[in-house]
Amino acid sequence: MSTAAPRTAGPDHLWSVDEHLDDILATVRPLEPIELQLLDAQGCVLVEDVTVPVSLPPFDNSSMDGYAVRVADVAGASERYPAALEVVGDVAAGRAEPPRVGPGQAARIMTGAPLPPGAETVVPVEWTDGGLGEGPVTGMRAHSLAPEGATGQVRVHRPAGARAHVRAEGSDVRAGDRALEAGTVLGPPQISLLAAIGRGTVRVRPRPRVVVLSTGSELVQPGEELGAGRIYDSNSFSLTACARDAGAIAYRVGAVADDADTLRDTIEDQLVRADLVVTTGGVSVGAYDVVREALASVGDEDEPGGGIDFRKLAMQPGKPQGFGSIGPDHTPLLALPGNPVSSYVSFELFARPAIRTLMGLTDVHRPRTRATLAGSGPLTSPEGRRQFLRGRYADGEVAAVGGAGSHLVAALARANALIVVPEDVESVAPGTDVEVILLG
Amino acid sequence: MSTAAPRTAGPDHLWSVDEHLDDILATVRPLEPIELQLLDAQGCVLVEDVTVPVSLPPFDNSSMDGYAVRVADVAGASERYPAALEVVGDVAAGRAEPPRVGPGQAARIMTGAPLPPGAETVVPVEWTDGGLGEGPVTGMRAHSLAPEGATGQVRVHRPAGARAHVRAEGSDVRAGDRALEAGTVLGPPQISLLAAIGRGTVRVRPRPRVVVLSTGSELVQPGEELGAGRIYDSNSFSLTACARDAGAIAYRVGAVADDADTLRDTIEDQLVRADLVVTTGGVSVGAYDVVREALASVGDEDEPGGGIDFRKLAMQPGKPQGFGSIGPDHTPLLALPGNPVSSYVSFELFARPAIRTLMGLTDVHRPRTRATLAGSGPLTSPEGRRQFLRGRYADGEVAAVGGAGSHLVAALARANALIVVPEDVESVAPGTDVEVILLG
Repeated sequence: MSTAAPRTAGPDHLWSVDEHLDDILATVRPLEPIELQLLDAQGCVLVEDVTVPVSLPPFDNSSMDGYAVRVADVAGASERYPAALEVVGDVAAGRAEPPRVGPGQAARIMTGAPLPPGAETVVPVEWTDGGLGEGPVTGMRAHSLAPEGATGQVRVHRPAGARAHVRAEGSDVRAGDRALEAGTVLGPPQISLLAAIGRGTVRVRPRPRVVVLSTGSELVQPGEELGAGRIYDSNSFSLTACARDAGAIAYRVGAVADDADTLRDTIEDQLVRADLVVTTGGVSVGAYDVVREALASVGDEDEPGGGIDFRKLAMQPGKPQGFGSIGPDHTPLLALPGNPVSSYVSFELFARPAIRTLMGLTDVHRPRTRATLAGSGPLTSPEGRRQFLRGRYADGEVAAVGGAGSHLVAALARANALIVVPEDVESVAPGTDVEVILLG
Repeated sequence: MSTAAPRTAGPDHLWSVDEHLDDILATVRPLEPIELQLLDAQGCVLVEDVTVPVSLPPFDNSSMDGYAVRVADVAGASERYPAALEVVGDVAAGRAEPPRVGPGQAARIMTGAPLPPGAETVVPVEWTDGGLGEGPVTGMRAHSLAPEGATGQVRVHRPAGARAHVRAEGSDVRAGDRALEAGTVLGPPQISLLAAIGRGTVRVRPRPRVVVLSTGSELVQPGEELGAGRIYDSNSFSLTACARDAGAIAYRVGAVADDADTLRDTIEDQLVRADLVVTTGGVSVGAYDVVREALASVGDEDEPGGGIDFRKLAMQPGKPQGFGSIGPDHTPLLALPGNPVSSYVSFELFARPAIRTLMGLTDVHRPRTRATLAGSGPLTSPEGRRQFLRGRYADGEVAAVGGAGSHLVAALARANALIVVPEDVESVAPGTDVEVILLG
């Protein structure tokens, strides 16, 4: 059940972090599944129960390079009193029809090749003279160099029980077995299994396409010259990287100047390739907060359920936030604040779970743990706001890096965790047990 | 110091897992660095110490939407006795030259905008009447809708000390500071910092390009019809997925039939795009083990230091292995065994560290931990071989899934760990403390 405040909560409602998150997760729905080529489905969530169409192995086959023989023919064999058998041919994986093995006969067999008719067991080549008429050998000579190995006589030095070194048909999986259940995330071992049972394509939820754009007339592309009063655009880079890290296909649109019409046009233009739009900046109470201006009324009239709601959250950093949907497909849009640390923290808390929900994952959040606060002085936090401080976590301890300022991106680059200070706590002394969100 | 056995150890030397791994890691070298666009460098290792060229913030700027004023002009102000100031214009981020703030004057200022000349502090808009002549406001009206907000009079309801709500130039990082050190892995926060200091490109070791091909005349592409005696090619899919998971750009070449000339031609053809070649199958002692046949002598004559060494390892699964370098650039090549589980385990143990070494990472191995063996019966393991059993790990306990058979790919798909049984242990009872390699 969602605890989200109703959209009618009004502009003065101070949203808690959990209310805002619940609103997002109650709105965002997993993407419609599509059939993808196996390797394109890596990291995706399976939406079908996959049944094994054909048993694995599909036939009895040898687990060794050796000779396929009858049990009685090698009973009692030893190096001193070897069993001499007529070699009737080779059985190699994927080659022509295997020869029949009669009494007193052997077929030279390769690992993975089907047990030939008449044969009951396999003796490894190391238990034989390899057809050379001398002592035990360590392997076979290549067929292309010594084709005579497929004929002549072989001496077997040890007996073998029935079906020794034979992998039985269906000993891995049987036709009709459930191979994988819907909801499985497809990593390399699952892809291995799907390929092994012959699945070239598979039905999964695709990776979400996330369009990232930053706003601000002061933003300059990194690598270009920085004019007076200007700063470099870092948010569109950092959030594109965050979106990929969350599993999305991310498109960095870059920085858009503070002009409502331009911004609206840009976003509308991008909707065709967006499963989620993330903007940064322009969401606060200033006279040039263009995201708010451009999107606050979008869709109110002819798109029921659409529109972006701008709200204040009881958190630091990241107080001003926007969320809603936009365009004919009600594409979800998260309007994050513009300070680099605010936008990063907001992305981790709100956009990452949204992306992972679109993917159909059930485990959408960063892992959390408890840690002992290290450091020499207490952490302070404003009353009534949940604070997320950048921290460095290791071995059950966490220390704050940098200060609370939301512009401290240098400290962020040294952090590997967020320290959570609850709304009702204004000071946390070293040695206190704190909640920690583990990043990356 | 490498403990690798010398190449002259001879064909009968039984290599330990560690000797083989040491040989690989002593041979494979990090790739040459290249300058990459920032977002293309995600996940890569930085090879330069990055110095901050310009302080962050580059200028004193406002942390709030409000009014830039002189301290004396708002001293003693209250809602009852507000300070009435003349608004001389707007200061918005990235806009034209800011107005000068004289005595009795205020400039409307937006978050991030430079503190204008003459101003000493910032009062948030919530501490004023926003120029509307009534009580406190919660924000500004958009400039495009109410341009008169940049002029007229504002009443300030609270005093502010010097430089309140001002972020000082260089308070994040200062020009000349070390931003990031060589060796740093570039995740989203590091990309954020690099963008913020204006770096559009960065010098890193690129992702290795890994060519994956499986060998075997019995292999059929998943999705196609399975003829008698044939199996689906799963290795080229699973190892391509593994290579990507390790951080590589992986090219799946697919299955090559058991013909030495075709295989040699295919590999030579692929070398142009390979930093590492991984093959599966054809490395054992059979008469059709084409990888061994095709590559055992490659480079011996005119490529000193080149050539692929085929060896037996004291491990299960994965006894037969090949490793060496090939072609004019001495491209490293790992020839893994063909059983799906053997190739997967071999990749995780040997190819993944090789890929991560090529990337320049120092942490090249999967994490290991200790766990208590769960289950009803003992695990058995052949003496003298290190066994890697597929297991399911959770909360300090691990249970084996499936058996020891190297063809049990269905069990592999349920595993999230490998249980390590040392060479000198033949049986492990439930309750025993075991070493575990955590996968993915």
